[in-house]
Amino acid sequence: MTDTYLNLVNTGFTKKLAKQLGLPRPAVLRRHRPGAPLVPGPVVVLDDAASEKDADTVAQQLLDWDLDVRRHAGPEERFGAAVVVLTEVASPEDLSAPVLALGPVLKRLAPGGRVVVVSRPAAGATSPAAAAARQGIDGVVRSLAKELRGGATGNGIVLADGVAPSAPSAVGALRFLLSGRSAFVDGQLVEVDSDAGELPTDWERPLDGRVAVVTGAARGIGAAIARTLAGQGATVVAVDVPAAGDALAKVANEVHGTALQLDITATDAAERLLQHVRSRHGRLDVVVHNAGITRDKLLANMTPEKWDPVVGVNVMAPLRITDALLVSEALGEAPRVVCLASTSGIAGNRGQTNYAASKGGVIGMVQASAPALAAAGGTINAVAPGFIETDMTARIPFATREVARRFNSLQQGGQPVDVAETIAFLASPQAGGINGRTLRVCGQNMVGR
Amino acid sequence: MTDTYLNLVNTGFTKKLAKQLGLPRPAVLRRHRPGAPLVPGPVVVLDDAASEKDADTVAQQLLDWDLDVRRHAGPEERFGAAVVVLTEVASPEDLSAPVLALGPVLKRLAPGGRVVVVSRPAAGATSPAAAAARQGIDGVVRSLAKELRGGATGNGIVLADGVAPSAPSAVGALRFLLSGRSAFVDGQLVEVDSDAGELPTDWERPLDGRVAVVTGAARGIGAAIARTLAGQGATVVAVDVPAAGDALAKVANEVHGTALQLDITATDAAERLLQHVRSRHGRLDVVVHNAGITRDKLLANMTPEKWDPVVGVNVMAPLRITDALLVSEALGEAPRVVCLASTSGIAGNRGQTNYAASKGGVIGMVQASAPALAAAGGTINAVAPGFIETDMTARIPFATREVARRFNSLQQGGQPVDVAETIAFLASPQAGGINGRTLRVCGQNMVGR
Repeated sequence: MTDTYLNLVNTGFTKKLAKQLGLPRPAVLRRHRPGAPLVPGPVVVLDDAASEKDADTVAQQLLDWDLDVRRHAGPEERFGAAVVVLTEVASPEDLSAPVLALGPVLKRLAPGGRVVVVSRPAAGATSPAAAAARQGIDGVVRSLAKELRGGATGNGIVLADGVAPSAPSAVGALRFLLSGRSAFVDGQLVEVDSDAGELPTDWERPLDGRVAVVTGAARGIGAAIARTLAGQGATVVAVDVPAAGDALAKVANEVHGTALQLDITATDAAERLLQHVRSRHGRLDVVVHNAGITRDKLLANMTPEKWDPVVGVNVMAPLRITDALLVSEALGEAPRVVCLASTSGIAGNRGQTNYAASKGGVIGMVQASAPALAAAGGTINAVAPGFIETDMTARIPFATREVARRFNSLQQGGQPVDVAETIAFLASPQAGGINGRTLRVCGQNMVGR
Repeated sequence: MTDTYLNLVNTGFTKKLAKQLGLPRPAVLRRHRPGAPLVPGPVVVLDDAASEKDADTVAQQLLDWDLDVRRHAGPEERFGAAVVVLTEVASPEDLSAPVLALGPVLKRLAPGGRVVVVSRPAAGATSPAAAAARQGIDGVVRSLAKELRGGATGNGIVLADGVAPSAPSAVGALRFLLSGRSAFVDGQLVEVDSDAGELPTDWERPLDGRVAVVTGAARGIGAAIARTLAGQGATVVAVDVPAAGDALAKVANEVHGTALQLDITATDAAERLLQHVRSRHGRLDVVVHNAGITRDKLLANMTPEKWDPVVGVNVMAPLRITDALLVSEALGEAPRVVCLASTSGIAGNRGQTNYAASKGGVIGMVQASAPALAAAGGTINAVAPGFIETDMTARIPFATREVARRFNSLQQGGQPVDVAETIAFLASPQAGGINGRTLRVCGQNMVGR
């Protein structure tokens, strides 16, 4: 769980040594701390001429957050973030001016700085040239994210046509991506599908009053999710298998929630879960299907004993429990379901056909379940972690682990809290316009495809 | 253009040495040779029970090609290919039996063997469980492709709901993926959108009688495209800038085509192209927008001189020329437009914001142009090459090149002919049901995203 190398290259004598030797120097990422500024310096808002009105809307939002906002980059300043608004580009030629204006800003981006590009989906374009411009932005975002250093990240927000930059999820995504909560989200484009959602009254506690179930909550990423959701105001129901009972009770107590020992693959799992929630909390607003297992084996040597439990825990249980929730009266008015996918489910991974089947399955499940959740006033989404520093990844042999954790644009593994923060965002009221999507939390992992 | 290391580890004493030292040993890929068998051994066709009828259709097609077909994997056989038909899976649990049956086959797959999985898109599923199963297959294909060795590849064919495995593009994609023509296509899923297209009378010459324009044809990938299209029967119009005139004439003569010196970014480029085609060949059936340039620079130091020409040549020229073609009377009855994208346009690349903008642009362009081409009886698609051995990549410094070329599941760069073969497939009559898509030719490159 500790990245010793990262600590060494950021401390004292070994920091100097690493610099002199030209070794990779992953930065200590800027993560959320209550009271710390949203961004580490002034924010410049750039646009192509046609998108100026939308850029003004974004700039006003940033001013409302008491940020120091510039509409042009002065020559000597240092910036905390750049937001580039390209919602109205009509041709690839329109990208030249605003992207070239961004260039000099990158040189003066503070450590932990942010670049966020706001655009529209190619699929909604009315001409091939406009579609080319829009999809070209995708290439620009993913390229510049690979160029940033010092723990800075580059991401995009893709607003469906008709969705304004003032829509709750557009604003919510912008704040999330600027903040330290998105520390390990890099090179990604967050798609906003609709105007649904509501801005919170308190950005530090958007989950106030919500009841949230977290499966696999006894340790690792699950425990971090429980802590993060509780920290943002939720009442947490921590679920894990009976064998993890002690650790589970500890987490539940720590977050002032309740614990439920449950095998999520049991036929009565959904029923028992709903019973617990109804009797202890009255209702249920958020479900995080975090519980997951791996049983790695090359497909040539795969067995039903290694295949079936992975599919059973990782995707069949979330399918069955979500089905049961949707017909339950215990479900709140704006439900949020968040599933754990994986970059292995997107890109595949050697030795993980079973895991990739299950995590790819989760991606298909959230896509297909989105209409039903929307009909219930809610959303369902997934996060896809890359290499995260946990007890599980700590068991990977040293050399393999060292390669895997450096193998992304941030040159380090993520922390469980990075996954948890992204889940908390998708569970929040402001994310109501994001539905059926899978968001990577992987530092722009080089996983192929 | 030569991968010396690949030659060494596959020849004589150095082959033994590499084996003893445990060095990576990229295989010599199985490429198409006229008269060689379609696959290097018997083909086993597997299915889940529900998909048996579709599997029978596929097996019959393979028998029609005089292949040695098995419906079950015997314990001692060696296989040239496995085709797994999973068109009717309804739940992730349905994947267990057919995927586990594939496992033992992988152990006995011949060098240059093939795995092809036939499935349906998650987006068309009628239940979350079916969508999960379908998207789970995506994860399985990409995982197993990373496990195969000896130049074997794993790919998928995703048939839109309602499209039968006997549809021309389903059959065409199956033959392409089984053959040596797809040597460097790995870990990819070919999407078939409709029943459109026609099977060729001669599989060696599907382009007989077609007139094909290839831009940037004087050298590298463009010259390979001209040769491959001509080899499959097309009359080729080789286009390149006047400065490349001598090389262009040589390629045009070699393929018994015509040469046209043309700056594709000139305002009258489309007009001059159409004039040449009308006067020399009467009409035009295939356009390959291959001409492309790079001007790499970190965005922080990017200039209009490096940005604008890249966007101008790589995406603005294809946009304008395609526009002009669509309203021209010279266009044949089943036109095919094929554009060159790049894995950089999909995943971004450090130092290539301009190139990624242009190549991402190409991907958006083909998506958005698909309806117009379909209305004209044709298709427009893109191929996205990864690391290809050309004069351009030969100029990359040794160490960087050596990493880049090994950085995929086949542990080597592709050859220009690999890109050309994929373009020829998309230009063929049998590919009429594939429209608006981008197909990677990258050996399952680890490019991040």
